[in-house]
Amino acid sequence: MDTVHYPTPAVTTEHRPLACAFTKMRAHTLALIAPLSAEDMVVQSMPDASPVKWHLAHTTWFFETFLLKDQPGYKLFDPDYAYLFNSYYEALGPRQPRAQRGLLTRPPLADILAYRAHVDDAMSGLLEADLPAETEALIRLGIAHEEQHQELILMDGLHLLAQSPLKPAYCPRTPADAGGRQGRFQLRPGGLVEIGHAGEAFAFDNEAPRHRTWLQPFEISDRLVTNGEWLAFMQDGGYSRPDLWLSDGWAQVQANGWNAPFYWQASEDGWQEMTLRGLQAIAPGAPVTHISYYEADAYARWAGARLPTEAEWEAAAADGVLEQVDDVAWQWTGSAYLPYPGFLPGAGAVGEYNGKFMSGQMVLRGGSAFTPAGHARPTYRNFFAPEKRWLRSGLRLARDIS
Amino acid sequence: MDTVHYPTPAVTTEHRPLACAFTKMRAHTLALIAPLSAEDMVVQSMPDASPVKWHLAHTTWFFETFLLKDQPGYKLFDPDYAYLFNSYYEALGPRQPRAQRGLLTRPPLADILAYRAHVDDAMSGLLEADLPAETEALIRLGIAHEEQHQELILMDGLHLLAQSPLKPAYCPRTPADAGGRQGRFQLRPGGLVEIGHAGEAFAFDNEAPRHRTWLQPFEISDRLVTNGEWLAFMQDGGYSRPDLWLSDGWAQVQANGWNAPFYWQASEDGWQEMTLRGLQAIAPGAPVTHISYYEADAYARWAGARLPTEAEWEAAAADGVLEQVDDVAWQWTGSAYLPYPGFLPGAGAVGEYNGKFMSGQMVLRGGSAFTPAGHARPTYRNFFAPEKRWLRSGLRLARDIS
Amino acid sequence: MDTVHYPTPAVTTEHRPLACAFTKMRAHTLALIAPLSAEDMVVQSMPDASPVKWHLAHTTWFFETFLLKDQPGYKLFDPDYAYLFNSYYEALGPRQPRAQRGLLTRPPLADILAYRAHVDDAMSGLLEADLPAETEALIRLGIAHEEQHQELILMDGLHLLAQSPLKPAYCPRTPADAGGRQGRFQLRPGGLVEIGHAGEAFAFDNEAPRHRTWLQPFEISDRLVTNGEWLAFMQDGGYSRPDLWLSDGWAQVQANGWNAPFYWQASEDGWQEMTLRGLQAIAPGAPVTHISYYEADAYARWAGARLPTEAEWEAAAADGVLEQVDDVAWQWTGSAYLPYPGFLPGAGAVGEYNGKFMSGQMVLRGGSAFTPAGHARPTYRNFFAPEKRWLRSGLRLARDIS
Amino acid sequence: MDTVHYPTPAVTTEHRPLACAFTKMRAHTLALIAPLSAEDMVVQSMPDASPVKWHLAHTTWFFETFLLKDQPGYKLFDPDYAYLFNSYYEALGPRQPRAQRGLLTRPPLADILAYRAHVDDAMSGLLEADLPAETEALIRLGIAHEEQHQELILMDGLHLLAQSPLKPAYCPRTPADAGGRQGRFQLRPGGLVEIGHAGEAFAFDNEAPRHRTWLQPFEISDRLVTNGEWLAFMQDGGYSRPDLWLSDGWAQVQANGWNAPFYWQASEDGWQEMTLRGLQAIAPGAPVTHISYYEADAYARWAGARLPTEAEWEAAAADGVLEQVDDVAWQWTGSAYLPYPGFLPGAGAVGEYNGKFMSGQMVLRGGSAFTPAGHARPTYRNFFAPEKRWLRSGLRLARDIS
Ligand SMILES: [Fe+3]
Ligand SMILES: [Fe+3]
Ligand SMILES: [Fe+3]
Ligand SMILES: [Fe+3]
Repeated sequence: MDTVHYPTPAVTTEHRPLACAFTKMRAHTLALIAPLSAEDMVVQSMPDASPVKWHLAHTTWFFETFLLKDQPGYKLFDPDYAYLFNSYYEALGPRQPRAQRGLLTRPPLADILAYRAHVDDAMSGLLEADLPAETEALIRLGIAHEEQHQELILMDGLHLLAQSPLKPAYCPRTPADAGGRQGRFQLRPGGLVEIGHAGEAFAFDNEAPRHRTWLQPFEISDRLVTNGEWLAFMQDGGYSRPDLWLSDGWAQVQANGWNAPFYWQASEDGWQEMTLRGLQAIAPGAPVTHISYYEADAYARWAGARLPTEAEWEAAAADGVLEQVDDVAWQWTGSAYLPYPGFLPGAGAVGEYNGKFMSGQMVLRGGSAFTPAGHARPTYRNFFAPEKRWLRSGLRLARDIS
Repeated sequence: MDTVHYPTPAVTTEHRPLACAFTKMRAHTLALIAPLSAEDMVVQSMPDASPVKWHLAHTTWFFETFLLKDQPGYKLFDPDYAYLFNSYYEALGPRQPRAQRGLLTRPPLADILAYRAHVDDAMSGLLEADLPAETEALIRLGIAHEEQHQELILMDGLHLLAQSPLKPAYCPRTPADAGGRQGRFQLRPGGLVEIGHAGEAFAFDNEAPRHRTWLQPFEISDRLVTNGEWLAFMQDGGYSRPDLWLSDGWAQVQANGWNAPFYWQASEDGWQEMTLRGLQAIAPGAPVTHISYYEADAYARWAGARLPTEAEWEAAAADGVLEQVDDVAWQWTGSAYLPYPGFLPGAGAVGEYNGKFMSGQMVLRGGSAFTPAGHARPTYRNFFAPEKRWLRSGLRLARDIS
Repeated sequence: MDTVHYPTPAVTTEHRPLACAFTKMRAHTLALIAPLSAEDMVVQSMPDASPVKWHLAHTTWFFETFLLKDQPGYKLFDPDYAYLFNSYYEALGPRQPRAQRGLLTRPPLADILAYRAHVDDAMSGLLEADLPAETEALIRLGIAHEEQHQELILMDGLHLLAQSPLKPAYCPRTPADAGGRQGRFQLRPGGLVEIGHAGEAFAFDNEAPRHRTWLQPFEISDRLVTNGEWLAFMQDGGYSRPDLWLSDGWAQVQANGWNAPFYWQASEDGWQEMTLRGLQAIAPGAPVTHISYYEADAYARWAGARLPTEAEWEAAAADGVLEQVDDVAWQWTGSAYLPYPGFLPGAGAVGEYNGKFMSGQMVLRGGSAFTPAGHARPTYRNFFAPEKRWLRSGLRLARDIS
Repeated sequence: MDTVHYPTPAVTTEHRPLACAFTKMRAHTLALIAPLSAEDMVVQSMPDASPVKWHLAHTTWFFETFLLKDQPGYKLFDPDYAYLFNSYYEALGPRQPRAQRGLLTRPPLADILAYRAHVDDAMSGLLEADLPAETEALIRLGIAHEEQHQELILMDGLHLLAQSPLKPAYCPRTPADAGGRQGRFQLRPGGLVEIGHAGEAFAFDNEAPRHRTWLQPFEISDRLVTNGEWLAFMQDGGYSRPDLWLSDGWAQVQANGWNAPFYWQASEDGWQEMTLRGLQAIAPGAPVTHISYYEADAYARWAGARLPTEAEWEAAAADGVLEQVDDVAWQWTGSAYLPYPGFLPGAGAVGEYNGKFMSGQMVLRGGSAFTPAGHARPTYRNFFAPEKRWLRSGLRLARDIS
C-alpha cells in the first residue's frame, strides 16, 4: 500500500500548555491515519460515516472558521472549503450534503494535509499571544471537537474495512480488550444528588449546569457485560424472543436480521468479531461491544435488570465504585438525551454543537478504547440514536432495590 | 349516504357500577360512528391510522380475549378474529400486518356489529356475577382501552376525511374550541415533589409507581398557545429559520414542506383548518392543534420559553394553577417517554400494553376535545413519536427562573 | 353481507344497434359488481389496482366528458367528479393521484350508482338521434373503454380478495378453466405478411395502420402452457436457476421471493390457487395463469422455445391454427409495445388513450376469461409491464425453424 | 495531485496482429487513467457507475477467467479477485454486489496495476502461440469487452467529477465536439432490407444473425440534433408540456425535476455544460448529448418527427447517407432491445454477455466521442434503459412519408 508521509507540525509549545495540548492533539490525528492509504481515506461506507479525509479537513475547518478567519492577516486556504467541510452549522451557510461526502475525490489528500499544515501554522502564531478567555475557550472546544472526530476516524475506518470481503486490519498492533472477572452489583443509596459540570475546566455545554436530582436507592454493576454473558443471552434465544425487546427494537431485529452484535460473524470455528486488528475469535471475558441501545435494553431485561440512568451512572462514578469506566466501551444508559434543567447552548454558531441534537437519541456514559486519552470525564454525555451499532458501545447493568 | 342502524346493548346495570360503566362506554363507541358509512369505516388512510371498523372489532376482541375466552361456556364468535384483530400482542400470536388493516373488506361491518353484540351479551353475563378483583381490573383496563380507541376513531376518521378533496365534515354539530384570554406564566417553587399514580383507582401501569423527583423553580403558562400566537410565529419566519428547530425537526420541515399546522390550508380568505366540522376559518383565540413535538419545541424556542417537563406539568396541575388542562388538546412536554423508577409492567400479555413502547416517543399530558369524558387524569401519560401530527396536540409554555 | 340493489338502465334500443350495445355493456358492468358490497368496492388493494367504485365512476365520467358535457342542456352530475374520476388525461386537467383512489369513501357508492343512471339517461337521449360518424366512433370507444374496465374490475377484485386471510370467493359460480390436450407446434411459413387493423369496424388507434412485415418461418403451439407443465418447470428448479432468466427477471425473483405463479400457495394438499371461486386445487390440464412476462420468458427458455412475436401470433391466428385464442388467458409475446409504422394517435384528449404508454411494456395477444365477450379481436394489442402478475396472463410457445 | 506511474506492458507484437491489438488496447486503458489519482479511481458515484479501479481489475479478470485460468502453469494472481471483480456472470459464482463496488479501498490501486501486468505477461505468452479459432474469438471478445469499459471509464469518470462542487476537468485537452450545419432529411425507399452481422469479422452475438426485415419508405436526418435546436425546444416549454412526453417520461420529468440535458446547469452567463474539459459554455452548433430516451422521444414529437428504428438507421448507414455516425454521440432509436430472429447467445458463461439484458432497454446506434477508435460498426447494438442520461447519447430524427 502506498503510505503517505505527513509533515509534523512544528510549534514551540514550552510554557504554553494550550499550545502544547493543541500540537499533541493534532499530531495524534496524523498518527491515527498512518495505517491508511489515500484510497481508504476518501470513501464513505454509509451515510452515518464520513471519509477519513473529510474528518481531517473538517476538524481543520473548525479552527479556521471559529478562530482564524477573522484574525488580521489570515489568508483562507481555499474559499471553497467553507462549503465542502462545514458539517451541520446552519448559521454558517450551505454545505456538501452529508451522504455525499464520499464523492469528494478532489481536493486530494495532499491538499488536505497542506491545509492542516497551513492552519497549524496560523494557530501556532495565535497561540503565542496572550489570548482572551473566550478565545481560549474556543480553542479548547476545537481540541475537544477534533478529539471526538479522532474517535469517529476509528469508528468509520473500522466500518469501512468491515465492509470489505477481505476484512483487513486497520492496525494489527491495536491492543485487545482485557478480560477479567464478571461484574458485581454495588448498592447505592440514592437521595438528592448533584450531577453535571461546574467550574472552570473544559466541558461541553450539554454537561451543564450542575444540578440536583433525586434518585431512589439502586444497584449498579461494577463491570461491563462480557461477550461470554452475551453468548448465553444468544443461546437462550435472546434475538428471537419479542417479549425481551422494545417494540422498535424488535422491528429492527426483524427488518435487519440482527442475531448477534454488529461486527460478529459465524465461522466454522465459532463466532468471530471484526476489530481494528482484523477478524478475531471472540474473547469471552472481554466486554461485549458494538451493540445498539435496543440490544443492551433487551439483554438487561433478560438478565432481570435494567440500564442505569445517566444520573445513577454519574453518581456511582463519582463515588468510585465503577470499573471499566472509560477504557473499553461507552455504556448505554436508560436516559434520553435531553437538556439539563437550565441548559443554555453556547452563543453563536457553536450553539449548534449539541443542543439541536436533543431528540431521538439515548445517552451513553464513560468512554471507550477508541476515545483519545484525557477526552472523557464523568460528566461527559455521549449520545446516539438507539439503533446505531457502529459506535464502540457496551453496557453495564443496574437494578432497583425492591 | 346510507347510514347504518346499530343495536343498542341491553344490559341491566342498576346497582352495578362497573356494568354501568361498561355499557355506557360501549354505547358511546356506537354513537361516535353514527355519522359514518360502512365505506368510511373500512378504509385505512395511512399506516399510522386504522379503519374505524377495525377499531370496532379490535376493542371487542380485547374483551373476548382477556375476559371471555376462558369463561366456561363462552363460544368464540369467529376463530379467525384472533388473527384479524390482534393489534400488537406478540404473546397472542401472529396478526394482520398493521399497514394492511385496510384490506379487510371482509368480514363486513354487519358482522363486526354482530360481534360487538355477541361480546356485549357475554360481558353482560359476566358482569352480573361477583368478580375477583383481578377480573374487575381487567374489565377496567378494557374500558380504558376502548376509550383510547374512541379518541383514535376521531383522529383516524378526521385524517381520512381530510384526505378527500371534498373535505366532508365528520359531524357538523361538533362544538368548536372556545377562545379566551392569552396564557399567563405562573411561578412554581419546585423542590422535592411527588408524581405518578398511587392508590386503588384505575390507572395504566405506566403511571406508577408514584415517586419523588426534584424540580428547580419554574414558570408555566396557565393556558395553551393560540392560533393567533402561532400565526405570529409563522409570520416571523418560524418555519424557515433553522436556528429555531431541533435538527431532526428541521429535517422534517424540509422533507415534508411543513409551513403550518397539519390541518391548515391556505385559501383566498386566509388560513383554514380541517376539523370534525369540515373546513373552517382559523379561530385566532382558540388553541393551536395538530402540531408535532418539533413544531411545539420550535415555537417555544421562538417565544423565549421551553416545553414543561411532565413532572413540572403534573406538579402544576396538582396545584390547580392550570386552565385548559384536558378539554382542548394534549400538551407536548419536553420529557421522553421512559419508565418511572421502579416501573413494573402488567403481568402476561397485557404487560405489552405500554412498556414496550418506551423508546422514541415524547410524553403529552392533559387530554383533548377528542378524549372521552372521564378518561384522562393528571397522572395520565400519553405518548407519540415527535413527528406525528394527526393527534389532537397543542402546547403550553414553561420557563426557567433565572 | 349487505348486498346492494342496482337500478337497471331502461333504454329503448330496438333498431338502434349502438344503443343496444351501450345498454347491454352498461348492464354487464352492474352484473359484475352484484357479488360485491360497498366495502369491497371502496378499497384499493395496491397502487396498480383501483377500487371498483372508482371504475364505476371513471367509465361513466368518460361518457360524460367525451360525449355529454358539451351537449346542449346536459347538466353535469357533479363538477367535482372531473377531478375525482379522470384517470390520466393530462389535457383534461389535474386529478386524484392514482395511488390515492382508495381514500375516496365519499362520494358514497349510492351517489356513483345515481351518477351512472344520470349519464345512462342522457346517453339514451343522445343515442336516439342520428349521430355524426365521429360521435358514433367516440361512443364505440367509450364502450370498448368500459369493457376494458370490466376486465380490470375482475382483476382488481380478485387481487383485493386474495389479500384477505379469509380468501373469499368473488363469485363461487364462476366456471373453471377447461383442461385438454397439450399443445402441438404448428409450422408457419412466414414471409411478407400483413398485420394490424384496417377497415370500418372499431379498433383502438394502436392496432393501426395495417402494414407489411417480414417473418422468418416459425413454429407456434396451438394451445397454452398448462399448470401441469408449469409444475414440471418448478420441479426442475425453474425458479432457482438464473441461467433461465432475463437479468431483470432474476432480480424480481430474488427481491420478491417468486417461487410459483402469482396466486399459487402451497398447502398440505399441494399447490392451491386463488381464483374468482376462492382457493382451489391446481388443475394440471388447465392453462397456467397470472404469470409475469419474466416467468413466461424463463419457462420458454427452459422448454427450448421462445415466446412468439406479436406479428407471428397475429399471422398464425389469422390462419386459424390456434386454439385457446381468447377464452382463457392473454398471451405474453416477445414484442415490446411500440407504435406500428405510420401510427397516428387519436385527435384531442383521446390521443392519450394508448400512445403515451408505448415504453416499458410488452404486448399480450388474445383475450382471457375475464375479458367481456366480443371485446377482443385478432389485431388487439394488450400491454403490461413485464413484472406485472395480477392480469390474467398465460403463454403460448414458439420456435425458430433451424 | 499525486499522479501514478504505470508500467507499460512489454509484449513483442510484430507480425502478430491479435497480439498487437491486445497490447495497444491495454495501453489505451492506461492512457485513459493518466489524469486520475488513486482517490478518483476508488469512489463509486452512483450504483449505475463503477469505480475506475474496478474497471481496471474487472477487464483484467475477464482475460484471466476466460483465457488464462485453465492454461497449464498459469498462477491466479489472487483467488479473492474472482469474487471481487466478477460483474454479473451467474455461472461464475457469487460476487461483490454492484452497488458496493465503491467500498473496495483494498486491494489498492498498486495491486490492481500489478494484476494488470501479471495478466498482460501471461497473455503475451499465450499470444505467441498459434491459437485455436475459438481462443482467438475469446481474445477478440476480451478486447471488445475492455473497449466497452474504456467508454464506461469516461462515462463514470465524468459522472464522478460532475458531482463535485469544484467541477474539475477530467482532461482539459479533450477536444470539443465540432459544430456544423443543421441536419437535412434524406429520403430512403425502404422495402425488404437486410440488417445484422454476418461473416468472419468480430461482432457481438446480439448483432447476429443477419436477417431480412421490411421497411416502409422513410426520411432520416443526415446530422444530429444540436444544442441550439434543443434550446428552442426548451424555450418552447419542452420540459413542461405533458403532451410531448411518454407517460413514463413525464413521470421522470416530474419526479426528478428535469429541465435540461443531464450535464447542463444554468449560470449568469447562460447554460453551461459539464464535460471532460470541465464546465463549458454550451456550443449551439454541436450535437446535444447526455439525454435520456424519454427526452429524445419528446424532442422528436415536438419537432413533428420521430426516432428512427434500428433497422432504418442501419439501412441508411449502409447506404452512406448519414453524417456524425459514430464520432459524437450514440443515437437513441425507437427500437426496444430484443433478440434478432434466430438469435443464439454465445456458449457457456459468455452467453450471459448480452442476451440476458434483452428487456427494459432501448437500442442506440452509432458510436460516440467516448468510444475507442475502431470499436463500433454499423451493425453495433448499444442499449440502455430509457431513463439513463450518463451515457454519451444524442438523437437523429426520422419521419414517415405520408
Ligand atoms: Fe464536527
Ligand atoms: Fe388497542
Ligand atoms: Fe380508463
Ligand atoms: Fe464487463
